[in-house]
Amino acid sequence: MSHNSFGHLFRVTTWGESHGPAIGCVVDGTPPGLRFSESLIQTWLDKRRPGQSRFTTQRREPDEVRILSGTMPGEAEGELIATGTPIALEIQNVDQRSKDYGDIARRYRPGHADVTYDLKYGIRDYRGGGRSSARETACRVAAGAIARLVVPGVRLRGALVQIGEKRIDRTRWDDAEIDRNPFFCPDPVMAAEWEDYLDEIRKAGSSVGAVVEITASGVPAGLGAPLYGKLDAEIAAGLMSINAVKGVEIGDGFAAAALTGEANADEMRMGNDRRPLFLSNHAGGILGGISTGQDIVARFAVKPTSSILTPRRSIDAEGNEVDVMTKGRHDPCVGIRAVPVGEAMVACALADHVLRHRGQTGRD
Amino acid sequence: MSHNSFGHLFRVTTWGESHGPAIGCVVDGTPPGLRFSESLIQTWLDKRRPGQSRFTTQRREPDEVRILSGTMPGEAEGELIATGTPIALEIQNVDQRSKDYGDIARRYRPGHADVTYDLKYGIRDYRGGGRSSARETACRVAAGAIARLVVPGVRLRGALVQIGEKRIDRTRWDDAEIDRNPFFCPDPVMAAEWEDYLDEIRKAGSSVGAVVEITASGVPAGLGAPLYGKLDAEIAAGLMSINAVKGVEIGDGFAAAALTGEANADEMRMGNDRRPLFLSNHAGGILGGISTGQDIVARFAVKPTSSILTPRRSIDAEGNEVDVMTKGRHDPCVGIRAVPVGEAMVACALADHVLRHRGQTGRD
Amino acid sequence: MSHNSFGHLFRVTTWGESHGPAIGCVVDGTPPGLRFSESLIQTWLDKRRPGQSRFTTQRREPDEVRILSGTMPGEAEGELIATGTPIALEIQNVDQRSKDYGDIARRYRPGHADVTYDLKYGIRDYRGGGRSSARETACRVAAGAIARLVVPGVRLRGALVQIGEKRIDRTRWDDAEIDRNPFFCPDPVMAAEWEDYLDEIRKAGSSVGAVVEITASGVPAGLGAPLYGKLDAEIAAGLMSINAVKGVEIGDGFAAAALTGEANADEMRMGNDRRPLFLSNHAGGILGGISTGQDIVARFAVKPTSSILTPRRSIDAEGNEVDVMTKGRHDPCVGIRAVPVGEAMVACALADHVLRHRGQTGRD
Amino acid sequence: MSHNSFGHLFRVTTWGESHGPAIGCVVDGTPPGLRFSESLIQTWLDKRRPGQSRFTTQRREPDEVRILSGTMPGEAEGELIATGTPIALEIQNVDQRSKDYGDIARRYRPGHADVTYDLKYGIRDYRGGGRSSARETACRVAAGAIARLVVPGVRLRGALVQIGEKRIDRTRWDDAEIDRNPFFCPDPVMAAEWEDYLDEIRKAGSSVGAVVEITASGVPAGLGAPLYGKLDAEIAAGLMSINAVKGVEIGDGFAAAALTGEANADEMRMGNDRRPLFLSNHAGGILGGISTGQDIVARFAVKPTSSILTPRRSIDAEGNEVDVMTKGRHDPCVGIRAVPVGEAMVACALADHVLRHRGQTGRD
Repeated sequence: MSHNSFGHLFRVTTWGESHGPAIGCVVDGTPPGLRFSESLIQTWLDKRRPGQSRFTTQRREPDEVRILSGTMPGEAEGELIATGTPIALEIQNVDQRSKDYGDIARRYRPGHADVTYDLKYGIRDYRGGGRSSARETACRVAAGAIARLVVPGVRLRGALVQIGEKRIDRTRWDDAEIDRNPFFCPDPVMAAEWEDYLDEIRKAGSSVGAVVEITASGVPAGLGAPLYGKLDAEIAAGLMSINAVKGVEIGDGFAAAALTGEANADEMRMGNDRRPLFLSNHAGGILGGISTGQDIVARFAVKPTSSILTPRRSIDAEGNEVDVMTKGRHDPCVGIRAVPVGEAMVACALADHVLRHRGQTGRD
Repeated sequence: MSHNSFGHLFRVTTWGESHGPAIGCVVDGTPPGLRFSESLIQTWLDKRRPGQSRFTTQRREPDEVRILSGTMPGEAEGELIATGTPIALEIQNVDQRSKDYGDIARRYRPGHADVTYDLKYGIRDYRGGGRSSARETACRVAAGAIARLVVPGVRLRGALVQIGEKRIDRTRWDDAEIDRNPFFCPDPVMAAEWEDYLDEIRKAGSSVGAVVEITASGVPAGLGAPLYGKLDAEIAAGLMSINAVKGVEIGDGFAAAALTGEANADEMRMGNDRRPLFLSNHAGGILGGISTGQDIVARFAVKPTSSILTPRRSIDAEGNEVDVMTKGRHDPCVGIRAVPVGEAMVACALADHVLRHRGQTGRD
Repeated sequence: MSHNSFGHLFRVTTWGESHGPAIGCVVDGTPPGLRFSESLIQTWLDKRRPGQSRFTTQRREPDEVRILSGTMPGEAEGELIATGTPIALEIQNVDQRSKDYGDIARRYRPGHADVTYDLKYGIRDYRGGGRSSARETACRVAAGAIARLVVPGVRLRGALVQIGEKRIDRTRWDDAEIDRNPFFCPDPVMAAEWEDYLDEIRKAGSSVGAVVEITASGVPAGLGAPLYGKLDAEIAAGLMSINAVKGVEIGDGFAAAALTGEANADEMRMGNDRRPLFLSNHAGGILGGISTGQDIVARFAVKPTSSILTPRRSIDAEGNEVDVMTKGRHDPCVGIRAVPVGEAMVACALADHVLRHRGQTGRD
Repeated sequence: MSHNSFGHLFRVTTWGESHGPAIGCVVDGTPPGLRFSESLIQTWLDKRRPGQSRFTTQRREPDEVRILSGTMPGEAEGELIATGTPIALEIQNVDQRSKDYGDIARRYRPGHADVTYDLKYGIRDYRGGGRSSARETACRVAAGAIARLVVPGVRLRGALVQIGEKRIDRTRWDDAEIDRNPFFCPDPVMAAEWEDYLDEIRKAGSSVGAVVEITASGVPAGLGAPLYGKLDAEIAAGLMSINAVKGVEIGDGFAAAALTGEANADEMRMGNDRRPLFLSNHAGGILGGISTGQDIVARFAVKPTSSILTPRRSIDAEGNEVDVMTKGRHDPCVGIRAVPVGEAMVACALADHVLRHRGQTGRD
């Protein structure tokens, strides 16, 4: 079952609400002997942490992770060695201004999970969005940091390729740019343009959507469990489970619908390493649900957050028709912080499939 | 685990290869007391069955389903009543012309799972694509026929909305058209255009991609298990697990990336039935991973099949560089037959979540 | 979920009723490259097959297994090679005398699942016990035959050690005896005694319970996933899920309750192979849920079948108070046929844990 | 998967080591609306808490539970309402005297999981037994406290029925006695005898085994998912997964092996409530893996703890042959504290099956 768990052999279970005392996760199935530290995990969390630029929520959370189980101290200062038992990770919630949310305790923000949580459970933690808050994604990033250790040869590179209607120019793609601007944008020209555009959006109390692209290099061939545990199916599930995501593509994705078989065929020659050498990558590194050894390319669309200043028509929990506007601190473009989250989900899917593949076939 | 199973409380496990003696599935968790018949399941299978027009593979399979367990005879002729134990469904493979595939036994079709199955398992059933053949989708449709009974108030409507670069005109959408042409196309003008276009493709021994749209009406509100068992995440996994699918969208999907929060907000008024009345459906019927009660709208992109007559550069299992062309019977547009398969996967996801929701909350 | 499935990475799903057209199972997760044949599986099925002596049910089923998927032909005659995709196994039901059961269609046999299936599902297949029939265990044996191939170094030895109040004398244990009598009895003296005893039971139309012991030698150390996937917990679940089983023990089992810590401690010296050499095996080869490398010893108690000739007080489905006696063909001691079934369940649990262990730790 | 999780719809995942900063669990799938409090859970934890008499370990842990997620404050002081999202429970480790364990850091206690954790993982947390410590069972009890709320009509009654070779006299059974002595013993005469006996054991630095019996009254009929999710199979797995457990019985258990079909048949008459009225309960409340509505009776055998003062022959991690004795604080009879743990596991199994049954059948 998968209420709040992702993966099978490498299995992440998250818990926690935006304004509770803490959030956290349990990472089960980690190979014993992995070496890491709290500060390594912190590095990844810091990439996602809010309040780092004016383009993400001004909530200030140190997001300090604590590891509560599943490790023994290593020889080096702060070094931890995984023992193979569950690793519990915990992050305290510090900056909870619950009063900000008092006026929407009973009102449903249009386009938000407020209403569906009430429809499902008959009760919900309205404070800061409760369980549906993007705050939960900190746990995904922390779990992803451990997943990366399980697939040490894999390099994950997330980037924002579209904000609103403004797309990057791929001819300007420069990996080094990604860490130089607050948008994870590989196109320096577009990064500058986004800056002005998002300033406008932010000042207007509005929000806007985005598209994130994750590339995983160095993925071993053979990962994936067809037919229902296909690698792309699990990546799709992982990415679609991130807050506000409305679409997922692998490789050419929706553009593949417009191709002919001739154009779509990734031709092969023999590589010097006696492995197939693909001459193109329309497939995004996955054929028949199994990795080819090429780069895995996944994209996902993030809708604009529903927390905006402009009043929208809605109802409240008693059924009264009301207008709703959100005054709390929010992201003008929640897609920005989704970049490290997307990387983490792909890392978790790969870690799970590396273990499953090794289990079934005895090969790495 | 989910090698070859989909769902949890309502769980489908499929087996079988294209050219083995049979294919089949086990549907576990069916509510007892459901009444149906082999001929009801056959009705749905017939929608997917190949060889019905010149636009799908000319393989002629009667696709006659047999039910081997999990039912007792009802009072009416042919009526069956589910007992709550596993329902085993089996379909014989009849028209296996394995010799057609002899020449590609060791050669990898570019863009096909041939190569990845060998990379993963070191062995594969090359006959007709083996396990990776679209033939497996007959099992999905059969399981989906039972899933439909679990959600009797839901109406599923699949349609093809794009072939190659040719998209339907939504202003001409007519549900009744869908069953009148061989494409499940709701736009009669475009259906005529596709006919000529696909004739060309077929005669050239080529293939082309497509986009399928599934709409589910009458879905109860409250389905979905956030955060990792979100309804949209499981629909995405289900659809992405279908052969040749490269992208999945819910509601506005990738178009949501271009919207502002104001435009994306599905405003609400109070309905006469004391339920929320949504004024738009950008969300595609799912907010925060939970159904809103609106129509669920999912789209998926199907790439062109890799079985084409034009030679492509490739390698064989020994590592020799070869040219590959496929002479077997294949679909010029595999997306056509994906329409009932997509419906079936959405039905299975909904059936699973109806049972899970009822289990956790005690409500339907 | 585990309605009708056992195991995780190596996963068996069974289906079928006693008097339906067939029974079968799907074995998913098999390592690719395993070589076997239908006749190998048949060998194990024949051990369990009814009608082989007057001490088991006189139902005559050839129990011929067919493999429908998941393999390619090997070089040798009849040889099959697992491809890593699901292996579907099917056994036709041939000798269904459903009329025998007409009079108990609506009456509940005391001590039988008749009544609970009706309480749970509101409907049941009463013909021959339907899903609750011991016939299902043929599928377990077939799946177990494949599981054995996954753990080729393991030798499984099942034996009957008690029928009614008559226990074997362990000082007379002789492995070779097990295949020489119709009881899988390692004690030739007791085997002779049981023969007379069971003749009496059979002629009286009565039945009697038994205790089965399974020993697995050659099990690698390190199998088991503490804390809830402990090897002993999964063996216990597997054995308790066999029809009529009411108790499971590992090693000293209930006798361990009477021991002191000194007596119970399995002391260790260093073996010549640089592995721990245990001086005793009170633990039955499992400590903390993980295999030690010693023999795994599991015992389970089988209650007498409830199908007896002596009338018992009961009720029918309409709530009338009735007397019930069973005239169909039944086992005087269902524990006899449980021996190969118990072996199969231990084999399946070991196969699953070998794959899981390899997946998590990278070691065999 | 079930490395460290138990249950499916109601799913408990535990984490933590004996001497880490904390232990805890995540309870997922809880029905929304359940009302409880930290102090209610504390009540159950206090039953299991060590250091309450001289017959349990002298480690002094307040075992104060904190609830970190999944609830909203109720109206009453301290009252919490479950929201349906994961409930994270945490218990700080306070009294960790790790130095006590320094000398066994590298030495394997005979009969303990020390050696198998090293064999499996190549690394282990030796401090206080690490993950294999009975300390983890506090999490089970906390989770069980929530499970009890899911099955409010069920009354669980655990009792110790045997210590060493000393069994209670069932004719003296008095439920009220159970809470009056430090052994959960229903027989006041035997309780007095055990006191003297255990004083001896304790003073000698020895330990002894025990048998625990759990009775669940008020269980609804129809729970259980045959064939592999049988209620008794899951109870067996749950109980066998408790530290030091070596055997599990349902109803007559191993004694059923000695019965005839006539003696074993639980005859039925019609109850005044129009439900079956069973005249005996050899089956222990479960037939064919499904609850009958009678009391569920489960027993399990607990071996003596391996932490004893008498030196035993063993090896160390380097392969040297050594003598091992344990000086840390330990239970002379770990079976005593297993009583509330056994209750908790049965509660969890029932909670899971109540939700599963409701999901599949729509009935409670």
